[in-house]
Amino acid sequence: MTQGNIFRSPGPWALAAVVAALALLSGCEQAATTGQVAEAVLPSWSDGPTRDALVSFVADVTTSGSPHYVPTAERIAVFDNDGTLWSEQPMYVQLAFVIDRVEALASDHPEWKDRQPFKGVLEGDLRAVAASGEHGLFELVMATHAGMTTAEFSDAVEGWLVTARHPKLQRPYTECVYQPMLELLDYLRASGFQTWIVSGGGIDFMRPWTERVYGVPPEQVVGSTMKMQFEMRESAPVLMRLPEMDFIDDKAGKPVGIHKFIGRRPIAAFGNSDGDLQMLQWTTSGPGRRLGLIVHHTDADREVAYDRESLIGRLDEALDEASDRGWVVMDMKRDWEIIFPAAP
Amino acid sequence: MTQGNIFRSPGPWALAAVVAALALLSGCEQAATTGQVAEAVLPSWSDGPTRDALVSFVADVTTSGSPHYVPTAERIAVFDNDGTLWSEQPMYVQLAFVIDRVEALASDHPEWKDRQPFKGVLEGDLRAVAASGEHGLFELVMATHAGMTTAEFSDAVEGWLVTARHPKLQRPYTECVYQPMLELLDYLRASGFQTWIVSGGGIDFMRPWTERVYGVPPEQVVGSTMKMQFEMRESAPVLMRLPEMDFIDDKAGKPVGIHKFIGRRPIAAFGNSDGDLQMLQWTTSGPGRRLGLIVHHTDADREVAYDRESLIGRLDEALDEASDRGWVVMDMKRDWEIIFPAAP
Repeated sequence: MTQGNIFRSPGPWALAAVVAALALLSGCEQAATTGQVAEAVLPSWSDGPTRDALVSFVADVTTSGSPHYVPTAERIAVFDNDGTLWSEQPMYVQLAFVIDRVEALASDHPEWKDRQPFKGVLEGDLRAVAASGEHGLFELVMATHAGMTTAEFSDAVEGWLVTARHPKLQRPYTECVYQPMLELLDYLRASGFQTWIVSGGGIDFMRPWTERVYGVPPEQVVGSTMKMQFEMRESAPVLMRLPEMDFIDDKAGKPVGIHKFIGRRPIAAFGNSDGDLQMLQWTTSGPGRRLGLIVHHTDADREVAYDRESLIGRLDEALDEASDRGWVVMDMKRDWEIIFPAAP
Repeated sequence: MTQGNIFRSPGPWALAAVVAALALLSGCEQAATTGQVAEAVLPSWSDGPTRDALVSFVADVTTSGSPHYVPTAERIAVFDNDGTLWSEQPMYVQLAFVIDRVEALASDHPEWKDRQPFKGVLEGDLRAVAASGEHGLFELVMATHAGMTTAEFSDAVEGWLVTARHPKLQRPYTECVYQPMLELLDYLRASGFQTWIVSGGGIDFMRPWTERVYGVPPEQVVGSTMKMQFEMRESAPVLMRLPEMDFIDDKAGKPVGIHKFIGRRPIAAFGNSDGDLQMLQWTTSGPGRRLGLIVHHTDADREVAYDRESLIGRLDEALDEASDRGWVVMDMKRDWEIIFPAAP
């Protein structure tokens, strides 16, 4: 249609002008939702059904007068972290932290060199660590995550992130995040969404850096928590981390964590594994327009291809349920032009 | 100083213009902090030291270039609810809900009429209820707060609030809130603060109405929580409330709740009882400019005068500690021109 055509058919043109005026009037309530603008804000997403699904969802819930319009306050999007926002292969980042920290603390714990699973960690014998089972892992987590104040733990995490490197990518873990997901977070926030992290990982392992890396402030991070105790040290209060789990924010725990921390049901959920199944179910069975999206790791060349058989980030039940529940299954190989951000 | 004087001394006038221009340039970061503007936004607060303390704190942390300047993201203020934002006399509102709910549910529980503490509630024999002690209270709370979905509980709270009336004021409980505190919440938010509730009350008892009444969204409410369980009902998920406490957000639990839910240390805390002691300690012992304020119920004519001897909202230790820690002790009789809002 040429410009002449537009002016010859004033009907749609006038309508567009009214829509634009309404958009201006409604201010922040109205987000940019045309494909053209989305292209500008989702540059690392390939053209195709996944990108279209994201853009049309955002258009539906942010366009005033749309039957699917959702007020800004209720635009809550929840994101899993491991495998959804950053790489979880070849092992969960928090597990790498545990291993490095056992090594860092070993000189204060001479008994560890003769005791599993610590011995296995110190000798690099991961088979022995695995043989210690869930109880062994629990011991490792408690030895490295408890018995210190919240401030001390936060410092330990931040200090570790400065020097630790992803074993394969040889980059800081905070650079092993998915560039397209960073763009999606920005796009949703620009469209009036709150973007929350809902992760099985430790809440205090994430909070020190999520704002810097993802633009997600500490108060919008939900994760697993340990018991804490308020103590007074020479009239200055501290919070001590106790060697006891308080809440595990994984699988059926995720909707519980969402209700507890957020108190509203999200309208969009993004995950990549069966750990996110219930979060996806909970989010997408509310009334009105909803979006569930699964990040499917299909790219063995640029990242890792894994799903039903993987020990880390197994995606099986959620994949089976996706089509019945109308979830979008993203295909990393097809849908992402870029995986990781350029080096800073 | 007359207008002529102002123009004859261009120094301060020019400075004021520069400050105003900077304020405009820095946009939302810069809050109105002059006494004159504060008067417009805190109309129910009497002139005097308490109001001055509020205004000077806000000016200190919001003025760009001030040595006490705090970025918007870190402007977290926490408010106790019972006795700080709304009336807790003659009994906690949530206890009135428990009593009314026992009556409402009694026909489904014929056994209650012969069993304490239910019998006592149904017969209005509060002495018998009190005699059942903490365990009795726990039983009442579980019978009225658990065994239903989160959505059902939220509906029960909202339904109750429509008809329930404060026994003395004969107004809906959501109108028995303190007008000066509503203004303070607005003033802080207009100054870039997040205003969080941190209450010993049930989180799901508060969330259905805090946004409407206080302007505090559900995700900024911290309170006591019950265990929940994710369940699938004919492929539609629900969250069931279990008869077990998850977390008690009172006394030494308040800093724990703050760290767990917010993940940052607040810079201002508002409370009225020893239940807020640790929250005040935790908030005001962080670095930089801090504000702790105690609402002291001193007005027997317009509300209730109570502190050290009260069973509800006892204020004793926190009052003793206030001057050493530099907390502002507000005097309701002196500092508040109005207690409750005008009827709508």
